[in-house]
Amino acid sequence: MKILVLNCGSSSIKYKLFDMTGKEVIAQGGIEKIGLKGSFLKLTLPSGEKKVLEKDIPEHTVGVEFILNTLINSEYGAIRSLEEIGAVGHRMVHGGERFSESVLLNKEVLDAFTACNDLAPLHNPANLKGVNAISAILPKVPQVGVFDTAFHQTMPDYAYLYAIPFELYEKYGIRRYGFHGTSHRYVSKRVCEFLGVNPEEQRIITCHIGNGGSIAAIKNGKCIDTTMGLTPLEGLMMGTRSGDIDAGAVTFIMDKEGLNTTGVSNLLNKKSGVLGISGVSSDMRELLAACEAGNERAILAEQMYYYRIKKYIGAYAAVLGGVDIILFTGGVGENQFECRRDVCKGLEYMGVEIDYELNDRIRGTETVISTPASKVKVLVIPTDEELLIASDTMDILSRK
Amino acid sequence: MKILVLNCGSSSIKYKLFDMTGKEVIAQGGIEKIGLKGSFLKLTLPSGEKKVLEKDIPEHTVGVEFILNTLINSEYGAIRSLEEIGAVGHRMVHGGERFSESVLLNKEVLDAFTACNDLAPLHNPANLKGVNAISAILPKVPQVGVFDTAFHQTMPDYAYLYAIPFELYEKYGIRRYGFHGTSHRYVSKRVCEFLGVNPEEQRIITCHIGNGGSIAAIKNGKCIDTTMGLTPLEGLMMGTRSGDIDAGAVTFIMDKEGLNTTGVSNLLNKKSGVLGISGVSSDMRELLAACEAGNERAILAEQMYYYRIKKYIGAYAAVLGGVDIILFTGGVGENQFECRRDVCKGLEYMGVEIDYELNDRIRGTETVISTPASKVKVLVIPTDEELLIASDTMDILSRK
Repeated sequence: MKILVLNCGSSSIKYKLFDMTGKEVIAQGGIEKIGLKGSFLKLTLPSGEKKVLEKDIPEHTVGVEFILNTLINSEYGAIRSLEEIGAVGHRMVHGGERFSESVLLNKEVLDAFTACNDLAPLHNPANLKGVNAISAILPKVPQVGVFDTAFHQTMPDYAYLYAIPFELYEKYGIRRYGFHGTSHRYVSKRVCEFLGVNPEEQRIITCHIGNGGSIAAIKNGKCIDTTMGLTPLEGLMMGTRSGDIDAGAVTFIMDKEGLNTTGVSNLLNKKSGVLGISGVSSDMRELLAACEAGNERAILAEQMYYYRIKKYIGAYAAVLGGVDIILFTGGVGENQFECRRDVCKGLEYMGVEIDYELNDRIRGTETVISTPASKVKVLVIPTDEELLIASDTMDILSRK
Repeated sequence: MKILVLNCGSSSIKYKLFDMTGKEVIAQGGIEKIGLKGSFLKLTLPSGEKKVLEKDIPEHTVGVEFILNTLINSEYGAIRSLEEIGAVGHRMVHGGERFSESVLLNKEVLDAFTACNDLAPLHNPANLKGVNAISAILPKVPQVGVFDTAFHQTMPDYAYLYAIPFELYEKYGIRRYGFHGTSHRYVSKRVCEFLGVNPEEQRIITCHIGNGGSIAAIKNGKCIDTTMGLTPLEGLMMGTRSGDIDAGAVTFIMDKEGLNTTGVSNLLNKKSGVLGISGVSSDMRELLAACEAGNERAILAEQMYYYRIKKYIGAYAAVLGGVDIILFTGGVGENQFECRRDVCKGLEYMGVEIDYELNDRIRGTETVISTPASKVKVLVIPTDEELLIASDTMDILSRK
């Protein structure tokens, strides 16, 4: 069966078409600048070459239609007819407390998802647009929702609640939800397959480190804590997000700079993090280049970025009561050996022993980077959220 | 020499008079409700009995004068004449980046301290009122300032900076300062004396757990990180303070509840924490009673309170590269064995082995509560900020 995976943002749609026989990607690409000037679709040809198709894309349905037409294009398409698409899996951001696993989308589910809009006012409505576009164009194709928050729903209350008046949780659902759940779930399962160990008996710390970043503590297959919170702002320092900050500093900044809640959210989400400290870039590749050139603020941003990852690994080791596996994934976690090296230095006390010579050579391949004697296994495990979305979609269809 | 230690809040003054020959407290008490109806001074008599003296106290100078008169009262005073007071040491809250140690107070110092008012708009002006009152009444007596933030000034930049635009640090000094510094300094020195070890070679985690709470990571005598931030709101869950919370949740609450910055600060500082979750009390003794009575929200608050302490111990173990000493101090840390027990459970992976039977018996006495075989020494060390303030005052006078 062929399964189309869609990830719809407010002005973008990414897609991957899987042939599930061999779990192969047979087409992929993305649309950008929906509703803006200069919108386009960029696809990756089987040769690896990229092709850009410019087109006016005023809204999501036109975008989805454009993707579908591209898939069946006689020159660079991957399939002959849309009838080959057996199902569509959607990445959906905020499932609140309602969704702890992937589900077949129907009216009741979509109503419940819409009720979570408040918690993710930018993302959830965009996800819905993608679902509605498919419903309009391919009304008979089953659709599955895979939620970014679902994997974290197993956290205990003492880990997910904020220490604010309890009524605020009851009234508005203010609590830690966590994000990147699909990635944390994929890599935490995959690492156990890779090592040939039973996931029911492992204490795992998954570090999803990229432009956005989060860490999860996973005990016997279940998430027990994660760094992102009600929103993706909490936790690690990120490309443009501040991560953890004193709430007293938030109101202090608002007062001093005369910002309202939108203004300070914008500052903390889009102008902070690696970009805010370095003044150079939010991209860790550009940051590393600036560090190598001796830029002091870039070096500071790098130290802060690593330091906060290390703190959370330590915190989660404590709540897990010790660790069996630490893994790195995401753009930075998979590709930047410097990050893994600096984060792991000094973790010997918890049983971590890195083969630094090996670590320095690894980019984006599944590898054990700890020494054979290391009590804690440390690995690089490239993430594949789309594959997990496609697999969940398959599983749910087969259960129908 | 006799040294008077003052701790002036916006409507209160606490005092202790030390005879430094034997480092003994010879008088102590406090004034409450300055400027309010029903103001009074409560002193502890040598017998341990408390005595309340009611009096209209419109402002701090009247309060300080009242304290001084009480000290020389023929019936219940501790000294015969004010001339016996050799110096006054003040607890001062926010020394910003200007003060990394205690100093003799003079005009230049007080101007620099006043420049930090912005960072502690409630506390610093109150501290200054106490200094000015002494200057007015005892103009010849030297005064020393001991800053709550000073001990934490050794933190490296990557630990004290928030990942916000660097300009906000330069412009307003927005960074982590930390508080309870006098307590963390006292107990981290004292524990080394008590164990007979060299403080220059220890990795120590000091847990000051009380109604307000903070933890510090101390390496070779120097603080390298602490949980409180720009304000005392960050870090642990406290009696009425939320501690760590997603900055996205702060703006979400403001929007939903229609609160301005003062309103949300009030909510997070005064209505949150143990009180906000339990709905019972901010006092951990009352909370424990409610837990024993089976109150579910009280049990939840207790679990959250302990969980967050454990997370920070883990985080600081990681940044210290392992730990030699963990100590508990403060009202809860010294007296509630349940807190120490639950926090330390599961820390065996870092070398902690508690003698639980012993721990359960200890209240407020200097004791090693880890087993003889434990790699990490775990202790109860009662704090004594006033004694350190008095000692600093002595030291500075002797250097004059």
